[in-house]
Order: sequence, then structure tokens, then C-alpha cells
Amino acid sequence: MGLTLGELANSIGGKLQGDPDCVITSVATLQNAGPGAISFLANTTYRKYLQHTAAAAVILRPEFARECPTATIASANPYVAYARAATLIVPPVNPRQGVHPSASIGKDCAIDASAWVGPNCIIGDSVHIGAGTQLAGGCFIGRDTRIGAGGYLHANVVVSHGVNIGERVIIHPGAVIGSDGFGLANENGQWLKVPQLGGVRIGNDVEIGANTSVDRGALDDTVLEDGVKLDNQIQVAHNVHIGAHTAIAGCVGISGSARIGRHCMIGGGAGIVGHLEIADNVTVTGMTMVTRSITSPGVYSSGIPAQENSDWNKNYARLKKLDQLARRLQALERRLDPKD
Amino acid sequence: MGLTLGELANSIGGKLQGDPDCVITSVATLQNAGPGAISFLANTTYRKYLQHTAAAAVILRPEFARECPTATIASANPYVAYARAATLIVPPVNPRQGVHPSASIGKDCAIDASAWVGPNCIIGDSVHIGAGTQLAGGCFIGRDTRIGAGGYLHANVVVSHGVNIGERVIIHPGAVIGSDGFGLANENGQWLKVPQLGGVRIGNDVEIGANTSVDRGALDDTVLEDGVKLDNQIQVAHNVHIGAHTAIAGCVGISGSARIGRHCMIGGGAGIVGHLEIADNVTVTGMTMVTRSITSPGVYSSGIPAQENSDWNKNYARLKKLDQLARRLQALERRLDPKD
Amino acid sequence: MGLTLGELANSIGGKLQGDPDCVITSVATLQNAGPGAISFLANTTYRKYLQHTAAAAVILRPEFARECPTATIASANPYVAYARAATLIVPPVNPRQGVHPSASIGKDCAIDASAWVGPNCIIGDSVHIGAGTQLAGGCFIGRDTRIGAGGYLHANVVVSHGVNIGERVIIHPGAVIGSDGFGLANENGQWLKVPQLGGVRIGNDVEIGANTSVDRGALDDTVLEDGVKLDNQIQVAHNVHIGAHTAIAGCVGISGSARIGRHCMIGGGAGIVGHLEIADNVTVTGMTMVTRSITSPGVYSSGIPAQENSDWNKNYARLKKLDQLARRLQALERRLDPKD
Repeated sequence: MGLTLGELANSIGGKLQGDPDCVITSVATLQNAGPGAISFLANTTYRKYLQHTAAAAVILRPEFARECPTATIASANPYVAYARAATLIVPPVNPRQGVHPSASIGKDCAIDASAWVGPNCIIGDSVHIGAGTQLAGGCFIGRDTRIGAGGYLHANVVVSHGVNIGERVIIHPGAVIGSDGFGLANENGQWLKVPQLGGVRIGNDVEIGANTSVDRGALDDTVLEDGVKLDNQIQVAHNVHIGAHTAIAGCVGISGSARIGRHCMIGGGAGIVGHLEIADNVTVTGMTMVTRSITSPGVYSSGIPAQENSDWNKNYARLKKLDQLARRLQALERRLDPKD
Repeated sequence: MGLTLGELANSIGGKLQGDPDCVITSVATLQNAGPGAISFLANTTYRKYLQHTAAAAVILRPEFARECPTATIASANPYVAYARAATLIVPPVNPRQGVHPSASIGKDCAIDASAWVGPNCIIGDSVHIGAGTQLAGGCFIGRDTRIGAGGYLHANVVVSHGVNIGERVIIHPGAVIGSDGFGLANENGQWLKVPQLGGVRIGNDVEIGANTSVDRGALDDTVLEDGVKLDNQIQVAHNVHIGAHTAIAGCVGISGSARIGRHCMIGGGAGIVGHLEIADNVTVTGMTMVTRSITSPGVYSSGIPAQENSDWNKNYARLKKLDQLARRLQALERRLDPKD
Repeated sequence: MGLTLGELANSIGGKLQGDPDCVITSVATLQNAGPGAISFLANTTYRKYLQHTAAAAVILRPEFARECPTATIASANPYVAYARAATLIVPPVNPRQGVHPSASIGKDCAIDASAWVGPNCIIGDSVHIGAGTQLAGGCFIGRDTRIGAGGYLHANVVVSHGVNIGERVIIHPGAVIGSDGFGLANENGQWLKVPQLGGVRIGNDVEIGANTSVDRGALDDTVLEDGVKLDNQIQVAHNVHIGAHTAIAGCVGISGSARIGRHCMIGGGAGIVGHLEIADNVTVTGMTMVTRSITSPGVYSSGIPAQENSDWNKNYARLKKLDQLARRLQALERRLDPKD
């Protein structure tokens, strides 16, 4: 129960200023921390709270140490250092083992003895569940699906058949992996369903948010490479390929066969059109629509910040006739300079 | 079975014109109402249906009474009066009591004898469920969570551990409360999970729509104050704070630590950036992106209404070079008036 | 196991060039097909892979046949022909029959003997389930709901009470049908719940995506006509009416009482405001906001393609003052031509 500041500073690789024997038992924000709590300063928006904090210690960048009234652990990356500290101070709940009697288990499954299959889980035939992986309850795992070791599927997650999930993958409640893609062929105005015969391949250390959907591929697989992080309420269509260590914020929609590079960041509510490629190290800001391939790293945008409605209405009234306005400008230019 | 018009007018506080002994047994729209049905006129779009309605009576504003061919109950707020009338005429289904034998109940729970825990619910340790609260079935309630009296959790709702829910809270199917926030620290291009250690606090009389997600706080709680109403498919990120009686329409995304005031209305598909504040009594229209704090009440917008695609393409072609266009205008102005 | 090319060409109505006795056992993309596999060329983006394909045969338009190094089946609509072929070569898994012992079944239900009610399904009173319909597991079906023959409800689908679903309807995991609409009456700043008393009517051959929500009507029904196709993460509000054979891509939000015509296509992330009508054969492109009725067929847009952030910021800075810019232009015009 608790670690000393000295142990913590050692474990997270920071430089301690203060009493190494002070015991830390909790983590808290600068504003709400009390005795025994460690806090951190990563986003400088919160710097104003530093000088009045009642925390026992604060993890921060070296240059802010002198503003802090209490012990400090200096680190070049205080958010990473804090994440490590928090994991040590508040360890995850002990994993369970076994299969709850209310779970339905198919034939020919290989469920590791150290895994946990919680109440009301439904496991299809020939499912493999790796060591230590936890299924909280109410999860459905389709036939021929493989989930690696060290994973955590929260309540009511659905993973369809033929999905391959790596190690240490976390899937939050209500997420759906391996649903059919939106494959429709139009015949005389009516839609014919195109069988969705691919699977989903998910790498190691992937995290998928609540109520997010990842469709299976039409023929080849939908792929999330190692370290991909998806927030809540995201739609990943069939045959999308997301490169390693790319993070995607909530409410993003990605259309079929889009290929997103490694180390990208996609802002909330963005939309990615199908059958295009986004290079590595691309940032797309919130509510942006990507309609063409992006071939160079950089930041891309089309979201419009809010204005007072009366101003916006006037501006929009012009926007909807912007081409005319541009032609009027051109006419003036020609009149003043006929050679142009 | 049924109330008289006189009883209804009394109960909802409206002024009756017509036979007080006429029995009302159902509610219907102006277009589809028949004998025994009461209807209402709130949105004037539907005024055209008033003169031909076959309803037994209509709840409306006093100034429309003379256009109505049948009995009327006049009210300054006919939509509120109608809501009251409908609740009286079509009362909710009788609540159930007890715990279905297929439910899994943890240790040290306090489930009120008048509450209902439906089939296949999974209740963690030390959960408190108040008087009369109904869990329809397939719900997962994590350890140390408290749900007040008079609530209704529809099917397959997930409430994670350490969540505190007030009285008379309605949560629709598939909603997820208390999932981990999207907390990630970047270390040399890879994402380290930041433990999400806060909870969620939900006030009284809150309603949360189908497949909506509300993340738990990173350290402090995510908060929905009394009377907050969330529609379907909404994303509420960690440490968001939503003030009392604010209503948020479908598909809205709210990023981490945004603080929204009381009595706000947020239109469908809007996006709210994180770490900002929105004042009380602010309206944000549909598909608007809020990127900075809003300090005054009012209406704010940035959504663009649709045009014919060919017109829009021409306008967009200008928009993407709008800065150039503005510079060309400036050049003309300088040329005509060099002093400027 | 497998069909000959001759049988396939006959069944799908295409013209075979190649050995009619060649046996086809699988389907694959042009890039990944090997011996025994049939592929197709529908989207010309992938034409570049045709000349090097190792497929046993390719379904394509007649004009591309001579570019193909292997057998071909020519068809005017190769995507439809491929969909038919794939269904023949990879038939769906055999349906199950009966009721899993862990399911809870209400009173007075009529579940066809050839239907399957999977593990942990919860079926209310007076539910009707038609011949051959499959409920995968963890589904909740409210009282007085009727599901036609030949349907497939994937895991953890919730269908509330009083919903009427036609034949051959597919609903993907986590979808919610018949949740309450967002009906709220404002009384002195607080929201009063308006009872949602209508149902949902869903025609034949409808498909509904993962984690999509369809609210019940307030008084009349919410309606999805025959052949409507909804992708994932869509919000359909109360009393929306969607015409036959309309297809709606992921993340679309449709507000209350909107009426969308037949044979429409709505692009991903679009938003449709309530109480308006969209004519038949309308296409709305991605991330467009429809704020007024659309009375003519055609293509409508307002989504903005991404630019490099630095360019976009400059353009946006002008957009937010576009009305001023237009007035400055007008001033120049007047100065040069005072009669205007």
C-alpha cells in the first residue's frame, strides 16, 4: 500500500527534489490533491494551479520545479512519467481465472487456464483465448476467432467470427469487431448484399473505445496494426488499414479501403473518404473531411470554428455565392488592367 | 381506462372548451386522431392539419382555438400540457420487482426490494440499486456503483465501476457509462495508456440515449448535473462537465475536460473541443465546431447548409483560395486609393 | 465443394471465355487470388491489377476481357454478378433451429420451429419470430414485437416493444431499434419527458449496421421501407421516414420527422435536419448538412475537403469576415460605376 517518493522517482526515471521517504498512496489533480497524493503538470493550461497545490509531490518538467511549493519529480516527459507512476500506485484489479458457469462455450475451444470468461459470455466453436485475457461479461466471440494473451474485453463486446486479435488488446464496452461491411451492388435500383468474406486482424497493444465498430473485410482483412488506439463511437469500414501507433479520436468515420499511415493522429469527428491513402505522421484536425490521398506528413484541416450565429449567417450567405463574388472581382481587375 | 376531458383539463392546467364528460382513451397526431383521441398543436408546421382533424379534442395555444373543429384545451405551453396528458392517458407499464434467477449478483450489494434486476444482468460487488429502479435485462453494473431510486436502465446498458447515478435516471439500450477515457501519453512515437482513475457522477432526472458513451474521469469525475438530457450516439469524453438542464442532440462529440454550462442546447453532430468553457444559456446549432470558450449566452454556428453539388464545387474552389482572393481585392483597393 | 466456371456463368448470367469445366472453390481480390479462385473487376481503380492476376477467372465488363490473362465471365454489371457468384461459392453457415436453454421467453410468444433463439436472448411477451430467423445471442426483443421470416439478428441487438420487422431483415451487433425518441418539452428551463408512444415499422430486405440506433415514433411510427440499407453508427430519430431502397452510409444523423425519399444515397457523416422532405433519387455527399427540403433529384453537398492546415487557417480567417469582404468589393464596384 503506497510507495515512497524515492522508489517512485527511481521507477519512473525522474529526478527527485524532496524527501525520498515520503509515502505516496494516491494520485490526484493539482487542484484536488491532498497529503499522500502525487500530482503532475503536463498541459500548461493547469500551471496556474501549481503554486497552490497541496499535493505531496508533483511530476513536472524541470523548468517548472521552482514554482512548486512541494516535492517534485522532474522529467522531460511528465505525462509519460505520471502514467507510469499512476499504474504503480493504483494497480489494476486482480485478474480472475476460469469460466463462469453461465457462459456458453463452443466446441474445440482453447481457453487458457489463466484467462477469465465472465458471466453470460457466448463463445463460438474453435475460439482461442490467450493467457490472462479477461472477458468481463456478456461478450460474444464468434467461431474461429483468436484473442491473444493479456487482453481485456469489457462488458458486452462483440467480436464476430474469424477475427485475429493480438496481445494486450483492450476493447471497451459495446464495441463491435468484425461486423459485415457495407457492401452493396446496385441492380436496377435495388441493393444486392455482397458477401463479406474477409476478417479483421488486430495487432498487439491496440485499444478500441466504447461503442466503436470495426467491420470485417469484403475479401482481404481489415487491419489495425500494433499500437493503434481508437476512441469511442468510431466507424472503421471494411478493408481499412490503419498503420502502427496511429491514434484516432471519437466520432471519426473511415470509409472502405482507406489506408492510413503509421503515427498519424486523426481529430474527433473527422471523416476519411474510401480508397485513398494517408502518409505516415499525418495529423488531421477535428471535423475535417479528407477526400484525397495525403502524400506528405503535416497537418490537414477543413473544420470551421463557430461564430455568433448572426455573423455566421451573413458570411454563409456570401459563401453560397462565392464563385459569383470571385467573378465580380475578376471583372474589376480586368477593367482596371485590360491586358490581364 | 380513460379520463374525461374535464379531468384532463384540470390535471394539466388548461382551459377546456367542449364537453367535460367526453372520455379520452388515446393520444394521436392531428392527422391520425380518431374518436376518443386527444391531439395537440405545438409546432406550427402542423397547423394545416388542425381544421380537418377528427380528434375528440386538441391541446393548443388559445389563439388557435377558433380554427379547431372540435373540443380544445387551451394552454400557454401546449407541448408541456400534452406531455402531461399523454403520461396520464398512457401510463408506463407496471414496474417489476425482484431479481431474475439468471442474473449474477456480486457480494455486499444493496438492491432495494422494490427494484427489478432483469434476466442476464451482471451486478458487481458492493452495488447499490435504489427503490423501484428497473434493469430491463443484459445490463452490466460494475463494482461500487450506486444507482438511485426510480431509474430505468434499458437492455444491454453498461455502467462501469465507481459510477454514481442519481434518482429517476433513464438510460437507453446500448449506452455505456464509465468507460475509460482516451488518455494516452506519447513516448517516442508509441502511446502509453494513462490509467483512468476518476468516476462518473450523474445527477437526478438525467436521460441518456441509445448507444451513447460517457467516459469516466482521468482523476476527477466526469459530471452530468441534474436534468441533463443526452440523445443517441453521443460521445462524452473524460472529465467533461455538463451543467444542469442542458440538452444535447444526437451524434455530438465532446472532448476531454470541456465544461458546458446550464440550460444549453447543443445541436446534432456538433463537436466541442476539449479544455474550454461554454457559458450558461448557449445554443450551438447543428454540425458546428466549438474551438474556443464561449463566454456570453447566445447562438453560435459554423454548419454549412447543402447546395446543389455543382454550385458547391464552384464555391469550394474559390474558398480554398479565399486568402488569395482577399489579397487581390486589397490590391485593387490600394490601387484606387493609395493612401489606404 | 465448388462449382465449375460453366455452372457459375450460367447461374449469374454472364458470358464465359475459358474452360467451362474449371472448378472454382473460392473468391479473392485480383491481387491475392490464386488457383481455384474467382475474382472481379468493378471499380476501375483496381484495373492495374488485372493483367498480373493469378485468379482462375475474373468477372468483368466485356471491354476489359482482352486485358485479362485468364478465363473471364463478362457481365454488364460485374459487381452484381460477383455478389451472386460469391453467395454460391461461399454459402452462409447452416442456420440453427430451436431455443437455447439459457434464453428467457415471455408469455404468448409465437416462435417458428425453424427459427433460432440463441444463448441469453431475452424475449418479451407476445413476440412473433418468423420461419428461419436467427437470433445469434444476447438479443433483447421487447413485448408485442414481430420479426418476419428469414431474418438475422446478430449478437447483442436490442429491439424494443411494439416494433414490426419484415422478412429477410439483417441487424448487426449492438444496433438498437425502438429506443425512445428525444422528445422533451421545456417548462421554465427544465425538460419534461414527452412519452414516446409510436413504434417502428421496418420493411422487407432491410439491413441495419452495427451500433446504429433507430428511435420509435412519438405517436406515429418511425418507418424504414423495403430495401433500406443503413450502415454503422447511424442515428435515426423519431418519426423519420426512409423510402424504399435508400442507402445511408456510416455516422449519418437524421433528426426527427425528416422524410427521405426512395432510391436516395446519403454519404457518411451527413446530417439531416428534422421536419423536412428529401425527394426520391437524391444523393447527399459526405459530411453535408441538409437544412431545407430538397424537391428535385440531384446531388447536394456542403462538405469541405481538407487542405494543409496553414492554407486552411488563412482561408478560414477570411471566411469569418466574408461578409465584410463582399461589402468592400461592392464599394469598389460602386466607385467605378456609380450608376450600379
